[in-house]
Amino acid sequence: MKLYDCATAPSPRRVRIFLAEKGLTIPTVQVDLRGGEQFTPAFRALNPDCTVPVLELDSGTAITDVIAICRYVEELHPDPALMGRTPEARATIECWVRRIEWDGIYAVQEAFRNAAPGLRGKALPGPLSLEQIPALAERGRHRVQHFFAWLDSRLVDHAFVSGPHFTIADISAMVAVDFSARAQLEPAGNLRHLQRWYGEVSMRPSAKA
Amino acid sequence: MKLYDCATAPSPRRVRIFLAEKGLTIPTVQVDLRGGEQFTPAFRALNPDCTVPVLELDSGTAITDVIAICRYVEELHPDPALMGRTPEARATIECWVRRIEWDGIYAVQEAFRNAAPGLRGKALPGPLSLEQIPALAERGRHRVQHFFAWLDSRLVDHAFVSGPHFTIADISAMVAVDFSARAQLEPAGNLRHLQRWYGEVSMRPSAKA
Repeated sequence: MKLYDCATAPSPRRVRIFLAEKGLTIPTVQVDLRGGEQFTPAFRALNPDCTVPVLELDSGTAITDVIAICRYVEELHPDPALMGRTPEARATIECWVRRIEWDGIYAVQEAFRNAAPGLRGKALPGPLSLEQIPALAERGRHRVQHFFAWLDSRLVDHAFVSGPHFTIADISAMVAVDFSARAQLEPAGNLRHLQRWYGEVSMRPSAKA
Repeated sequence: MKLYDCATAPSPRRVRIFLAEKGLTIPTVQVDLRGGEQFTPAFRALNPDCTVPVLELDSGTAITDVIAICRYVEELHPDPALMGRTPEARATIECWVRRIEWDGIYAVQEAFRNAAPGLRGKALPGPLSLEQIPALAERGRHRVQHFFAWLDSRLVDHAFVSGPHFTIADISAMVAVDFSARAQLEPAGNLRHLQRWYGEVSMRPSAKA
């Protein structure tokens, strides 16, 4: 098994934290996203979508999605459970993760990629060249603030996003919060439930991954 | 168990086809999306995200995401397998589904919701009022054509999206193709591998669900 990673990118960081929580180490290859290595023929042969992370199995199969990678690892190494121990818990956690991706991670991505001078023509990850849309950056900034307000309200009477246990939903939400700094959108200090939770999850050793 | 559905919407249709392939029937409640029933206090109490499908369990838990619902059903009713029989197959199929959602379903959604006169102020599903962005509709139309070309190339030497078996990836891709008609974006007739596959999957009894 081999993990294609990029130390500065939010998506592979979700996998790195997941592996750290599991106590697993997988041989890792750094992909130079800033240098455009994801668009080289060699990388496209591995993942035509030109994104990281990719988990390459010994069979040659490439798993090219964050959650698919984590689920695969969870099936092989169930402890500690980070995606739920029962069908109902797994379904519930998957809903939280999807919501955090859609309303959090993708909203930050809208805000960031449609405004960053270095990402002109690259408003979405992947092989297509897409121009930045300023109104979409604005929409992303608006959506991120709603996401933070929602996350704060969710954490009023829950220790973690999905309830009493740390899960992949917390990993995803923490990465969304850290990613928001890239677009100068950090959550306000008066979101105290979010700040309490963020302080706790950020102190876990895995957060350094 | 109870399924909150809307007969005319693409997302719950993915669940309906999935259930039909499993030979399962679940008591269903129609939600009047055009009439705004998803924004009523009663529906928000079930799903604050104001979307369908929702699978409400007897425990009261609401599963609010298409794939989370399908995975839950697959765990309880493994045959026929529609999401893979091994960890590797499950991971691979999840990657196909994510790609079809991102490059297909969400691209059609970009094109459709940012242009349809009836969806002003509703450029994304959910509780936020978001104005349409004409440039995003244009980007969506562009992306959908790339998605169709990719799907056609994938089907050159594969019977189905993920290989020799019909899976949730085919359900998702067929719904993306049918949804594209809503934005007058149907795949061109010369995409003959896509058309061959589409003819086959559309003829399955489940496609009427």
